Formats: sequence, structure tokens, C-alpha cells
Amino acid sequence: MKHIIRLFSTFIILLICSPSYAQKPRARDLGVPFNGTTGQFNAITDVKGVEVGYSTIISGSGENIVGKGPVRTGVTAIFPRGKTQKFSPVFANWYSLNGNGEMTGTTWVTESGFLETPIMITNTNSVGVVRDAVLKWYVDTDWYNGEEWWYTYPVVAETYDGFLNDIYGFHVKEEHVLEAINNSSGGQIAEGNVGGGTGMMALGFKGGTGTSSRMIKIMDSTYTVGVLVQANFGRKPSLTIAGVPVGKELMDTLNNELKLPPQSYRKEGDGSIIVVVATDAPLLPHQLKRIANRVPIGIGLTGGIGTNGSGDIFVAFSTANPNAFQRYDFSGVDMLPNDLIDPLLEATVQSVEEAIINAMIAAETMEGINGNKSYALPHGLLVDLLRKYNKVE
Amino acid sequence: MKHIIRLFSTFIILLICSPSYAQKPRARDLGVPFNGTTGQFNAITDVKGVEVGYSTIISGSGENIVGKGPVRTGVTAIFPRGKTQKFSPVFANWYSLNGNGEMTGTTWVTESGFLETPIMITNTNSVGVVRDAVLKWYVDTDWYNGEEWWYTYPVVAETYDGFLNDIYGFHVKEEHVLEAINNSSGGQIAEGNVGGGTGMMALGFKGGTGTSSRMIKIMDSTYTVGVLVQANFGRKPSLTIAGVPVGKELMDTLNNELKLPPQSYRKEGDGSIIVVVATDAPLLPHQLKRIANRVPIGIGLTGGIGTNGSGDIFVAFSTANPNAFQRYDFSGVDMLPNDLIDPLLEATVQSVEEAIINAMIAAETMEGINGNKSYALPHGLLVDLLRKYNKVE
Amino acid sequence: MKHIIRLFSTFIILLICSPSYAQKPRARDLGVPFNGTTGQFNAITDVKGVEVGYSTIISGSGENIVGKGPVRTGVTAIFPRGKTQKFSPVFANWYSLNGNGEMTGTTWVTESGFLETPIMITNTNSVGVVRDAVLKWYVDTDWYNGEEWWYTYPVVAETYDGFLNDIYGFHVKEEHVLEAINNSSGGQIAEGNVGGGTGMMALGFKGGTGTSSRMIKIMDSTYTVGVLVQANFGRKPSLTIAGVPVGKELMDTLNNELKLPPQSYRKEGDGSIIVVVATDAPLLPHQLKRIANRVPIGIGLTGGIGTNGSGDIFVAFSTANPNAFQRYDFSGVDMLPNDLIDPLLEATVQSVEEAIINAMIAAETMEGINGNKSYALPHGLLVDLLRKYNKVE
Amino acid sequence: MKHIIRLFSTFIILLICSPSYAQKPRARDLGVPFNGTTGQFNAITDVKGVEVGYSTIISGSGENIVGKGPVRTGVTAIFPRGKTQKFSPVFANWYSLNGNGEMTGTTWVTESGFLETPIMITNTNSVGVVRDAVLKWYVDTDWYNGEEWWYTYPVVAETYDGFLNDIYGFHVKEEHVLEAINNSSGGQIAEGNVGGGTGMMALGFKGGTGTSSRMIKIMDSTYTVGVLVQANFGRKPSLTIAGVPVGKELMDTLNNELKLPPQSYRKEGDGSIIVVVATDAPLLPHQLKRIANRVPIGIGLTGGIGTNGSGDIFVAFSTANPNAFQRYDFSGVDMLPNDLIDPLLEATVQSVEEAIINAMIAAETMEGINGNKSYALPHGLLVDLLRKYNKVE
Repeated sequence: MKHIIRLFSTFIILLICSPSYAQKPRARDLGVPFNGTTGQFNAITDVKGVEVGYSTIISGSGENIVGKGPVRTGVTAIFPRGKTQKFSPVFANWYSLNGNGEMTGTTWVTESGFLETPIMITNTNSVGVVRDAVLKWYVDTDWYNGEEWWYTYPVVAETYDGFLNDIYGFHVKEEHVLEAINNSSGGQIAEGNVGGGTGMMALGFKGGTGTSSRMIKIMDSTYTVGVLVQANFGRKPSLTIAGVPVGKELMDTLNNELKLPPQSYRKEGDGSIIVVVATDAPLLPHQLKRIANRVPIGIGLTGGIGTNGSGDIFVAFSTANPNAFQRYDFSGVDMLPNDLIDPLLEATVQSVEEAIINAMIAAETMEGINGNKSYALPHGLLVDLLRKYNKVE
Repeated sequence: MKHIIRLFSTFIILLICSPSYAQKPRARDLGVPFNGTTGQFNAITDVKGVEVGYSTIISGSGENIVGKGPVRTGVTAIFPRGKTQKFSPVFANWYSLNGNGEMTGTTWVTESGFLETPIMITNTNSVGVVRDAVLKWYVDTDWYNGEEWWYTYPVVAETYDGFLNDIYGFHVKEEHVLEAINNSSGGQIAEGNVGGGTGMMALGFKGGTGTSSRMIKIMDSTYTVGVLVQANFGRKPSLTIAGVPVGKELMDTLNNELKLPPQSYRKEGDGSIIVVVATDAPLLPHQLKRIANRVPIGIGLTGGIGTNGSGDIFVAFSTANPNAFQRYDFSGVDMLPNDLIDPLLEATVQSVEEAIINAMIAAETMEGINGNKSYALPHGLLVDLLRKYNKVE
Repeated sequence: MKHIIRLFSTFIILLICSPSYAQKPRARDLGVPFNGTTGQFNAITDVKGVEVGYSTIISGSGENIVGKGPVRTGVTAIFPRGKTQKFSPVFANWYSLNGNGEMTGTTWVTESGFLETPIMITNTNSVGVVRDAVLKWYVDTDWYNGEEWWYTYPVVAETYDGFLNDIYGFHVKEEHVLEAINNSSGGQIAEGNVGGGTGMMALGFKGGTGTSSRMIKIMDSTYTVGVLVQANFGRKPSLTIAGVPVGKELMDTLNNELKLPPQSYRKEGDGSIIVVVATDAPLLPHQLKRIANRVPIGIGLTGGIGTNGSGDIFVAFSTANPNAFQRYDFSGVDMLPNDLIDPLLEATVQSVEEAIINAMIAAETMEGINGNKSYALPHGLLVDLLRKYNKVE
Repeated sequence: MKHIIRLFSTFIILLICSPSYAQKPRARDLGVPFNGTTGQFNAITDVKGVEVGYSTIISGSGENIVGKGPVRTGVTAIFPRGKTQKFSPVFANWYSLNGNGEMTGTTWVTESGFLETPIMITNTNSVGVVRDAVLKWYVDTDWYNGEEWWYTYPVVAETYDGFLNDIYGFHVKEEHVLEAINNSSGGQIAEGNVGGGTGMMALGFKGGTGTSSRMIKIMDSTYTVGVLVQANFGRKPSLTIAGVPVGKELMDTLNNELKLPPQSYRKEGDGSIIVVVATDAPLLPHQLKRIANRVPIGIGLTGGIGTNGSGDIFVAFSTANPNAFQRYDFSGVDMLPNDLIDPLLEATVQSVEEAIINAMIAAETMEGINGNKSYALPHGLLVDLLRKYNKVE
């Protein structure tokens, strides 16, 4: 008995202390069938140069005292060309399926065709502090690389974690922004309750950060599409995985477990999803709009419809054409012909779908303010359902 | 033998002479499971006042001689408030998932918030003749109702039927436009190879015209959402019905049956889909944009991703607020609060999905120019597949 | 007396038979001060490769009998790379200040970034016939250059000439479209009552077709911006030329001269303006949107505000990057840095302003249906006013 | 003599200590001719209910030490229905002529049709702190009025004051946001170097905050259009006032006075302009887009063209329909017919033009960081020029 308790303690400690994401199963590991071929890490970081960093802020438990906690939130940073390469804009564009949310910096993306800053994702009420902190970091690190300073408009997006987090306590500080920035790296990245996704919920279960990628061949070249989502959207009855009506099937099982506190009401579906799509294919800004416009289809395959309360905003960028951005000289840029773009559109849809499911598979049950609890999608029940519908053997 | 021939002839005559759509099974009749509650006719005409009319133009067979045929095309007319009610604009808006297509009249819809004309759908090369014919009909029938004539911009959309139809023969004439207009009616409407959808193909099989509807309750009111599609999009491997990978499963069965003629090549996926969404819920123009933006999700559930060659353009209108349009007086209009719009978004997604499948279920195998042939989705095989994936009993 | 009659006849003959636009004064010839340096012809054709053709249709006089006349209308064709160079798309984009008008083909311009057809301008009711005729011409002349035929979406715009023209008589035919196409040429081009602009009115006077250009230096390169307008917009009291309130000053002089017939009422201001901007600067599609967005400022300098009844739709294209359009191969394209775009924005504003005034200076008094008359802006009075406000010496 | 000195000192003290804006001449007082009829205060506050508040932050002089100063910045708050009326959204929409700037909260304005927060304007680097402070203020003051808290997205815009202000010192704090909010009032409001406009420059001279209004009659009703600008845009050679080329004329006079410091370079024209348009006319969101789209024409009349470095972003709202926003009940809203909208479009253009000139007339010469100096437009020279061009007697 004692032995078991010790084992259990060790388990808890491991859970808390180590990221250990290498060991956690992902959707594919459970047998969920997806179309397409993933990159090495099945992550946005499969697009060469892309780096992702998190600051995960978790503290306290019990009653919500505004300004004290409990805190379940964080910050995610995505660098198109890595954090060490100074000012190096990428072609980008964006689309909003449902604008009940915020993504700052978009008018300049639209106008210029370029994304000039890392993409940051946090909670709804911390967009401002993150935005200003990025500007300060730009100057403090001489990001403009010796050129005269000038102005830019950080791209900062958010979803709402007020069901679990003391969101009106404004717990995200400049230090967390710097932590996310400085932690950024390529390779395998954490999913679930990490970074901006820490306190998020999706489709009736615990949501958060997820990622996926696809490799495709166009003519003689191989390209990668990588996606990172902060998933906080959708209603349980709609949850669909690989065409299986998981949400409906699990309604009875878990029906009464979401308790809605009085002071921070959340209608089911009133979440949001931020999607970042990266590719190394040479797409111009108007072609990246086409990529961003396909994101809703991937969301739809998991059961999302962009409900009124949702801020479903998507940004797509291309790491190709490293010299496209010039201030005072013409640039020569490569461009994929429109007639060859379909594999990229398909890869986007597939990666979005899988990244969302990955977020849910990775997310663990979390208790937040006032004992509010969001439950992890039960892996075993999911596998049973895939079998019932003949989707796995 | 003679007996069989006679039976066959009768069959052909029946096929040609009678609409007989009452008897034809629709997707639900085959047991395809869809979410939501349909209206009486499961059609766009469930939205009170909406009328639909077709002109179906079929003649000739064999080699394509430009200007002679064979002809497999037509015209569809959709009247928001019926053809007998003169000039009576409805609130409307539109969205393009992929703009490789045409829908005329959209700048004025965007600007004014109103749709002033019937919506017409035809083949790619006949948009012009249909547009001008509508204007002529307006004047000839005193549509402006005694007021001074003025200008309007007919909304005319298209998809491409050049695989089966002598599309460069320009066979749609003013008379066909008038036929579609004059045939318009409410109630049950034909699907499949009719009207503008006559020569269309979708997701590897014969496509065409399809429709569906949903009834929803918001507060104490019941509203209807009705959809009509002209489906001519998508690749066979993507075809998905109720979460079942029908296209993949049927690849081997029918793999070699699509023959591509040299002079009118069509890459798989290079079709289009026009979607018309009607509702009687009191939505303002900016809310109708939200409806139109959800159409891609319904398309995605059937396997579409808005490929490069596709003209996926969607228009949504509301028949509520019959007196919203005034020229020289203020109007009072009802408005649904945004917080209650979700059921309408969901109904749109569901109706689009079902209307596409309905189009495919209703469409029959057609041979067109140069012996090009597009095959109907085999109903029996579909039911088998639904069983295999435990979607029907 | 006889002598005078003979002189008058000669004058009439000259008016009808010779284009004689070389001799007609343009705005600059009258001393109107404009900023910037024009190209050789002060025309859109200063952008190398651009060709413009007209079909001017004038017949009959007196009472309007629908279908008979009088006719005062036409067609204008603008070829970005000339009519002899087969299928050769240019980067393009567009903007609508006020969408009470029509420009077909725009969804594909937005989506693809390319303009694939000539730009055609005609009257409101003839958009359809012109559109289909362009498609027919494409096939008849093997415009696709031996490749398999496929679909495209002609860009056809319009303004309303129903005050002078039997617009519901539908007098534009395929032959006129071909005439405009076949007449297309570079160099000096006609202005005023020609082509689609034949029956148009602007800012209280006779309007029509106008053009202008600017040459600018960016780094070591010289670029040209050329503009063509079909001006049919605005109210007389707003007419402003070089900052001089010409309309207000001339209100009393000409106040009672516009007679409004009962059956084809036109509220002052209920016209439209189509603007085509060409440049040889290497701009990508999203940068051409920036060009198109500046057109309203040029219109505003002449007194326009985009009234409700106006279809103010603008398209901008770049003739640079002749090999940008590829179907199955990557292309390398040159791109002007955003930081150097200002001279192009300024040249656009200046060229639009001057092209509008040029249209009015060139247009001659015209009598149309039912004796409706639109008066030319009196050159002498204009010069007097420029002096009064110290704008010329 | 002593008497005079004393008077002068008093004058200086008054200048520094009291707002005293009642006494300062505005553009009309100098005789600048504008079209249209203003409201009582010729200010955005002529639209009933609109309140404006400023926090003006000025301290230090001499060398720029980042974080120390000198400080020349501030915050402006605009409440559509006044600061004491709790959560009461107004119909709104927005447009960006050139997106080199930031206006947060716009995706929700587009999606919902409503503006839910005050509009705040500050400097480029303080958008974040202002945004989060508004959210905090919402909760602290129970702005949601007893309803459960939920999320909203403050609309915060900016222009760049780094030529005069220690902008990377981040001197705007929560207290300044609260000051602007709490100072908000109707009636006469200050112009020039106040609020967010404190350190701004326009068209070669000192710029800042300006306002104007128009009263118009539609049918039997009188409506007001009010505009507030934060003007920080444009190049001196372009400055045009009432059609007079003031910038060109004053080039020689003041040519060498703008000194550009090395560490905070500002290309001429690289500013921005934020424009807020208010009206009490019952416009729906899509009609307010039409209002916002006309703002560029007003800017153009003063010489602006939306240069690349400029963030020219405009928001328009209507205070009509006080009960339009409902969460769980239908609302009845009044709507102006499109056919009657022209006077509102014209009033918008006129008010924007005059508000910009008012900002420049009110602004006083300011010395900022490193002795950088921005000079006020010399009133006397302006009047001389108006006379030269016969614009005043």
C-alpha cells in the first residue's frame, strides 16, 4: 500500500515537474485516422525556422479572489524565423470566421502583406500587456538591428479562460512575455495545458494548445504546412473526431460535470480558437489569404461552426522568400502558381483538424477558480467509439 | 426481348417526360443520418415566399460541334418573395470561399444591404445573356410597379458544365430565362439534373441542383433556413457522407469511368458550387454575412475544400422585414440579437451539407458531348457503406 | 447666308467624320494647373503595352422609342498588354467606393491576383452582352493560344446613360464589342463622347471618357501611372477644378438647362465613375489594392463624394512581371518595397483628378432621347474662373 | 510698460494654466471658407450624448533619456453615449485607408455591428496599457451593470509621437486612462496639443486633436454629423486649405525648421490620422461603413493621400437606436433609406476636412525631445494666402 502511494506521489511529481510531452500519446497514437503525411514532429515547427515558446502560469486553488487567483493562464510565442534572427518579416495574411475576439496588428498585415513581429497568444484581458511588452523587447534587444527604431504593430491574439482563471486579476506580466519569447525553440513542442492555452476548454472538454503538420509534394519540391491552435471553442454535442459523433455519444457519460459559476458565466460554445498556419511554400500575401480562408473547414470537421461568442481568427505566413522584405530596394520573390495550390489548401484543412484533436488529447483535467473543473477527453472511451464506428481495428 | 425493349423505352420516356421527383428517394430516404429538423419540403421553399423555377435544356448526343450541341445546360431562378410580388428587395449579403467563378450584382448587395432581383444560376458562359434578359424582363413586366424605371444589377451566378455541355455554343437564350422565371413556384422542387444544375458534376459523380431546410426555435419563434445549391465541385477521393469516406471506398469500383476529352479538359476538383441561403429570421445585412461565412463548413463536411479551380460563392437573404426597403421614408426593422444567432448558423451548416448530398442522390447518370459520361452515385453502394461504418442499422 | 450654312455643314461633317482629338484642347491647354509630370500622351497608353479601343454608337434623334433610339452609347476596351498578345494575365486588384454599379469578374481578380481579360466598359444594361461576346471572341481567336480552352471571367463595367440614350433598347451588340476590341491601339486616344463614355454626364455637365498619366522616379527607375475614367458622376454644385468652386460659380449661368424627362428620371449625382489605373511599376496584387484605394481622393478633388446612386468601382493593374502568370511552374516576380510606394499613390490621385477634368473638357454638348440635352463645360468661363481665383495668369 | 508686462504674464499664465480654448480662434474665425452648417460647438459633441475627455501628459525638456522623457503625449476618450450611461453599445463600422497603424477591437465591430466600448486614442506604444486599463475600469465600475461580467474588446487607436515624445519610455499609465475617461464631457472641447494628439504633427506643421460638425436636414428631421481627428499625417508640400496650396506657398518661409534627430527618424508623411465620425442619424452597420469610406475624401481635400507610413483608420458610429443592442430579445431599429444618405456622406467629408484644419489652427508650437520642434501653422500667413487666392475678402 505504502509502495503504491509512493508510486502515486512520484507520478504526481512527474506530472508537475517535467514537461514529459514526449511520452504522452497524441491523437494518432490512439489510432485516430487522419489523412495526409505529417512532418517529423507533426508540429508547426516542422516548417523550418519556426520556433514556439510558452509561459505557463499556474498557481493557487479554491475561491476566486480577483487579483489573487487562482491563476490558470499563460503566453505563447510563435517566431516565423526563430527568435535569434532579428527583424525579418514574412509574407502573411489573416481571416476571421467570427470576430468575437482580438488579434492586434492585422491592419498592417493586410496593408503591407508582411508580418513583422512574433505572433503572441494569451488570455482575453492580457492582450495589452503582451503587446506593449513585445514593443519594449524589440527596443531592449535592438531587434531592428542597428537601423533607426521605428514603429511596428505586434500581432497578439487571445482566447478567454475566465472559467478556470482569475482573468480579471491581470496576472500576465512583462516577465511572462519574455519567458515565452526566450523559451522559444524548434523541434518537439508541448501541447495541452501550456502557454496561452493553459486554461482553455474546447468542445465540452479541456482544450488548449495543439499542433500538427503535413508534408506535400508540388512539382519536384516538398513543402510543409504546420499549424498551431489555441482551442477554446465549441459545444460538446458537436464534437466530432474522424467522422465519429464523439460528443453526442459522451453526453450522458459526462453530462453533469461542467459546473457554471455565477460570476463568470460561460455559455457552451462561447469560446474561441486562434489558428496559426505556417508554410515554407512560396505564397504571396493574397495566396496566404486563401490558406487562412480554409481554416474554418478544418474546424468544421471537429464540430465547430464559429458560434457568436467565439473569436475565431486565423493568421497564415510563409517562411519562403527570406529577402522579400526590403526597405529601399526591389526584391525578387518566388511565387507558387495558383493552379498548384490545392495540396496546400488540403494540408491546411487536415492540419487544423488534427491540431485541434491533438490539443484535446494532450490536455489534462484542470480545476480552476471556485472549484470549476474542465475534464480531459477520456482516451479510452474515445478509442471505444472509434471502434464502434469501424474507424480503427 | 421485345418486351424488354418496350419496358426500356417506357423508362426512357418516363425519365424524359415526367419530373417525377416526388417518387425519387432523397438522402434521408436512403437512411443518411443528418442532424436537425427539416421543414415540410426539406427545401429552400420552406422559407415562406421563396419560389424556384428551372429551365432545363437537353438536346442532341454524340460529337461536340460548337453551336450545335449536344446541349446539357439550363437556368435556375430563385425569387425571395415569389415572382408575382413586384420589386420588393430583401436584406442580403454574400461571401466567396474561392472566387474562380462569377456572381454579378454583388457590389450593390454589399453597399446597399439589399438584394433587388431574383438570383439566377446558369453555366459559366451564359451569365451575360441571363443578366441582360432579367433587366429586359423587369421593364417588360413593369416590375418597378409604376415607379420611374431605374437601374439595378441582377445577381447571376454560374458553374461550368463544359464536360457534358457544348458550353461554347452559347445555347442559353432569353426564352430560357423567361421559362425559368415563369416556372417559379413554391412547394416541392426538383433536384439533380435540372435548371442550371443540369450538366454539373460533384465529388466524382453526377451533381447538379440540391436543396434542404431546417426549422429552429429561437425564444418563442420558429424560423426556417433553406438552402439551394448548384453543386459542381470536389474530387472523388474526398467525398464524405455523414462522416463516411464514400469517395475513397468507391475509388476502385468506378475508377476508370470518367473519361476526359481532349478539347475541354477538366481537372478533378475544378468545378464550383453556388449556394443560396434563405431565412425568415430577421437578420440585418451584416448578420447575413455571418450566415454566408458558415457555408464553407457545410461544404467541408462533404469533402470540399474550395480548390483553386472552384467558384464557391454564396449569397444569403432574409425574407423578414418586408418593408425594410424604402426609397424616401424611414423604415422600422426587426433584428435578431447576435447572442441568439447560433441556431441559424448551425442550421445553415446542416442544410448546406444535406443539400449537396441531395443533389448527388437525385442526379442521374448523364452522357454529354463526345460521349463524356458522368455517373450517378450508386445508392445501393452508399447504403452498404453507411452500414459498414455503423451509420445506419 | 449660304456661305454660313456651308461653313456650318463643313463643321458638322468635321465633327462627325474626324476624330480630330489632336486639335482639341485638353485641360492643361486651357491652363488648368495640375501637379506632377505627365507621360508623352498624358494618357493611360503611356504605360507601355496598354491599348484602348472604342465603339461609339450614335444614331437618331427626338422621341425615345424603346428599341429604336435615339442611341447615344458605346463600348470601351482596355488591353493591359495590347490586343495582339494572347492570354497574358497581369497582377491586378480593385476597390469599390460606392457599389451602385457593376464590374463583373472581380471575385477571380481578388482570389487569383490576376486580371485575365481586357477591361470593357459600356452602359448599365449592356454588361451581359459585352461579357459573353468577350468569351466568344476568346474562343474564336484562339486567345488561349493552343492550350485547352478553359473558363475565365471577363471584367466588364458600366455607367448609366439613360438620360440621353435609349438604354432599354439594348443597342450594344456583339459587333460593337468586336469593333472596340479591334480598334484598340496605343498612343494618343480620344476623350469625351467616345466609347462607353459616349452618353455620360458628370458634375452637371457633359462627361464621358478621359485619361491622364504621370511619370515618377523611384530609386533609379522611371515608372508611369496611367488612368482612364468613364465619368458619369457628381452634382454641379460640387464641381471643383484646381481648388476653384466652378460648379457654384456656374450655377446661375446654366441653372435651368438640365431638363429631366419623366420616364427616365435621373437625380443629380446618380451617376457613376469607372476608373482604370495602369502602371508599369512592379506591384503585387495587395499593393495594387493600395493604388485602387486612393482613387476616391482624386475623385474628391473634383467634387465627387461617392453618392448613393453612384457605381464608383476602380481596377488597378501592373504590366510589370510579364511572366508572373504560370500555370504549372513557379515564377519569379519583382516587387517594389512598400516604403517606396508613395510616389505611385500620389501619381494615382493626380492622374484620376486630371483624367476626370480631361473628360469634361473634351466632351461636347449632346442632345439625346426626347430632346434631353447635356451641356459641355464652357471653356471660356472656366478660364475666367481660374483667373478670378488666381490659378492662372 | 509695466502694465503691459503684467498683462503679458497673465496671458502666459492663462495659456499654461487654463484650457481657455473658448478664446482661441478656430479655422472659421480666421475666415477659412468651408461648406455646410455646423452644430452649436462645431464639434463631435454636437451629436447628443457624445462626450470627449483628455489626459495631456507634458513634462521635461531637453535630451531624450528613455524612460525619463521629455514627455509629450496623452490619451483621448470618446464616449458615444456619455461616460455615465453604462454598457450601451452603438451601431458602428470602420475603414482603413492605410493600415500602418493600430485600432484594436475592430473584428468584433465588423462581426457584431456594435461598438461596445469608448474609443480611446493614444500614442503607438501605449495601445496595450490603454486597452487593458479600459477592461479593468469596466469591472471596477461595474460597467456591465449587474449582469454577469463578460468579455469585450476595447477600441484603442494610435498615432506616433516619437519625434517630440519619449515614446519608448512608455509614459502612459492606467491613471492617465482614468483621467481621460473621468474628464469626458459634452459641449465645447479642447483642440490642438491635447489628449492623444498632444505630440502630433500634420502636413509639415504642429497637428493634434481637431473637431468639427455639420447639421443637415433629411425629410423633416435634422441630423448631426460630428468628427474628431487625431491628425499626425501628411507632407508639407501637399497642405491645402480651402483649395489654396498653403504648403507650397510656405515651403520657403519655413523650409529649414524641421530638424530630424538621428535616433527617431521620421520621414515626412510617415504619420497617421485617426478619425472618429459620430451621427445621430439612424444608420445600420453597413451604412456606417459607407460613412467611414468617405473619410479619405475629406483627408484628400487637405492634401493627404494615405502614404505608406500612415495609419489612417476610421470608425463611424450612430447614437440612434438606443435599444438596438439586446442580448436575449429582438429589437426594433430605425433605418434611414439608402436613397437619402447623401447629405450624411457630404457632411462627413466636410467635417473631416474642417476638423483637420481646426487641429492645425489650434495646435501651438511645441519643443520636445532633443530640442525637436514642431511649428504651429502661422495664422497670419494663412490669411494672407487665402486673400491671394481670393478665398476671403
